[in-house]
Amino acid sequence: MLRAVDVIRKKRDGEALSAAEIAWMVGGIARGDVADYQWSALLMAIVLKGMDRSETVALTDAMMRSGIVVDLSSIPGAKVDKHSTGGVGDKTSLILAPIAAAAGVLVPMVSGRGLGHTGGTLDKLESIPGFQVDVTLDRYKEILRETGLVLIGQTAEIAPADKFLYALRDATSTVEAIPLLASSIMSKKLAEGIDGLVLDVKTGNGAFLPDLERSWKLAETMCDVGRRMGKKMVALITRMDQPLGLAVGNAVEVAECLACLKGAGPDDLTSLSLDLAAEMILMASRAASIEEARGICERTIADGSALERFRVLIAAQGGDARVVDDPGLLPQPRRTIELKADRAGWVARLDARPIGVATMLLGAGRERVDSKIDPAVGVVFRRKVGDRVESGETLCTLLVNDEARLDQALSMIEDAYHWSDEPTTPPDLIVERLVAEIA
Amino acid sequence: MLRAVDVIRKKRDGEALSAAEIAWMVGGIARGDVADYQWSALLMAIVLKGMDRSETVALTDAMMRSGIVVDLSSIPGAKVDKHSTGGVGDKTSLILAPIAAAAGVLVPMVSGRGLGHTGGTLDKLESIPGFQVDVTLDRYKEILRETGLVLIGQTAEIAPADKFLYALRDATSTVEAIPLLASSIMSKKLAEGIDGLVLDVKTGNGAFLPDLERSWKLAETMCDVGRRMGKKMVALITRMDQPLGLAVGNAVEVAECLACLKGAGPDDLTSLSLDLAAEMILMASRAASIEEARGICERTIADGSALERFRVLIAAQGGDARVVDDPGLLPQPRRTIELKADRAGWVARLDARPIGVATMLLGAGRERVDSKIDPAVGVVFRRKVGDRVESGETLCTLLVNDEARLDQALSMIEDAYHWSDEPTTPPDLIVERLVAEIA
Repeated sequence: MLRAVDVIRKKRDGEALSAAEIAWMVGGIARGDVADYQWSALLMAIVLKGMDRSETVALTDAMMRSGIVVDLSSIPGAKVDKHSTGGVGDKTSLILAPIAAAAGVLVPMVSGRGLGHTGGTLDKLESIPGFQVDVTLDRYKEILRETGLVLIGQTAEIAPADKFLYALRDATSTVEAIPLLASSIMSKKLAEGIDGLVLDVKTGNGAFLPDLERSWKLAETMCDVGRRMGKKMVALITRMDQPLGLAVGNAVEVAECLACLKGAGPDDLTSLSLDLAAEMILMASRAASIEEARGICERTIADGSALERFRVLIAAQGGDARVVDDPGLLPQPRRTIELKADRAGWVARLDARPIGVATMLLGAGRERVDSKIDPAVGVVFRRKVGDRVESGETLCTLLVNDEARLDQALSMIEDAYHWSDEPTTPPDLIVERLVAEIA
Repeated sequence: MLRAVDVIRKKRDGEALSAAEIAWMVGGIARGDVADYQWSALLMAIVLKGMDRSETVALTDAMMRSGIVVDLSSIPGAKVDKHSTGGVGDKTSLILAPIAAAAGVLVPMVSGRGLGHTGGTLDKLESIPGFQVDVTLDRYKEILRETGLVLIGQTAEIAPADKFLYALRDATSTVEAIPLLASSIMSKKLAEGIDGLVLDVKTGNGAFLPDLERSWKLAETMCDVGRRMGKKMVALITRMDQPLGLAVGNAVEVAECLACLKGAGPDDLTSLSLDLAAEMILMASRAASIEEARGICERTIADGSALERFRVLIAAQGGDARVVDDPGLLPQPRRTIELKADRAGWVARLDARPIGVATMLLGAGRERVDSKIDPAVGVVFRRKVGDRVESGETLCTLLVNDEARLDQALSMIEDAYHWSDEPTTPPDLIVERLVAEIA
């Protein structure tokens, strides 16, 4: 008979746990015979003693099976999702999902909300008047079948053990361990019913894991876990040193996505979104090479089919699809404030993390899980890394409603700009590409 | 403002916690703003990352202050207690407390119950008809003042934080770490209101920590913690490879203690009890040297004053003091069974741990905290390490009521005997003496 104390002792002493032991511990959450205080002791032992790849797979599998694993086999076609580890201005989901869907990929996407300095896809979608992210799993399948894509929030039926453990990790400083991060993400994603997953693992000061070595390790772990569980996996490791695109907020980010889908978005955001969409198209075998897939992406923008797909999705999820043609229907702030340069020079760095925090202070993000957000506020950048700026020129525009912490936000953004007297160049967004296809 | 997550993170990353952080975490148990699952994560981090001496002192102090710290200053004279880390047949408290009290030392003793293979002083005392170990702290002081000694159980007012943490450690495999063991023992002992403490730290197969190096470390840690908290400290590290004395059980151990106090007890038990009592007498400055203190101990037995002191104590705590003259009034078993030697030779080893377990199987010990014990049952050994045995001679006598697990107990005891064809000698009981007096 298994006992929690014995499993904890084994990990405490640095031994590998068996799949049966891990499944029993995860099952104990629902059975009620493993206490939260026992799990938190085990989590700390995992953080300090590690988990090998088989253990990480077993933990992912057990958490995935703690809830419903959606069966999408009745819908013909390859189902591919993308997951990003999160960043500032990271809004590629709203661009790549319609593109991939327009290219014939089925995109079933279960997303999260923003917390701290990072934004969340659900919050951005909810800035579209009427848009519903809380739909049943039956309706989720229906929308996917009808429109080729669907974007919802995590329901209580998906990986409840992960939800329990995530809250426990948050309260016990056991969040950052790679095996725990990887299994948490993968258990939720694999419960969606996908055939493959494209990962966008962020690195740099605005990323959850700023250190490149650890970002790489997380990407490699998730690819390997997914592969061992029979999924196609690709990971791009991408820089999150400055905000992605120009807009940071919620409604303002949706507007920027619409611009991208119309071929008029900022280069960095458009380029990364197309790179990720191309990976999805290649993974779904809708193209023979990444170059061909990239070409398909560009055509879905040029012919308006990606934009059309977004319009259909908004309508299917109850949103006001008129925003596609008239972004002015999205929530607007009461006031805009220009931040001017007090010097001339080239922008050398534009630190993403303090900008994420400043945007949160304006009301666009969550300080705590239960904070309310304001969809209308945020920041639109005019100058980023590599740009020449003259003294007195506008660096960015703040979209403001509540001014309580405006001064603090302004000075954080001002401090996020670092200057050079020599010309600078923005670094390449993509650091590395990892592929793990099924053997 | 302190937060539990930050304190946990600090220890997780191997940093030393401040006394304020430790006090805040311990205080959080009663305040209710530190959850049990946060404490268990911290405990695991402490087990794997350690605690330095200042942290161990801070933890001891905070746990001690979580309840009442008894003030015995109104009773004139030096108060000295003894604590043993526990073993099989370890009954020195019932011998040394009356001896030390007869020598003028005040002995305020708060003891524990047995668990697993080890016995507990409270269980032994309760085998004396009527003896009360659950008394109020007011009555505790009264008895000490009247009789010079008192033997009670841990009340809810003494170190409640330790009680909470001990239960948590038991359920999360975080028991064995030296700083946690040391602070748990010391917080309870220092709350008794003592001026000094004599430690009997057991080592060997029947000890909680079998390994000599770890026993030494525990002794050294407790001495240092006590010294830093202003107490006189001495530790003897003693062997617990075979049972101490001849009797293992409850009533049968009380009977053996009475024999010792009458000068007719087994040599090993008498010798260690007198050594420990002499340390208490020296610590209380009732003698100028350990040799003089040893001589005093012998006189309290020879003149009957120690036995008389035990008689007075029993009466003061509601027990039937007639047992002192007539041990037959103690609970008796229905049946006795002799275990005979099936070979001739010298006893080379007599493993204490399986004997402790076998005695528990007979009903004398607790398998779980809530198990009931039978005061009448146990084992009386006739042959121990160093003894010559002829085939067919009695090795020991089992005192039996419930025979459900008798066969299992018998075979465990038989297996605990290891034989030699050459003469053997019992090892010296005392391995080392550590002294930590206040500078």
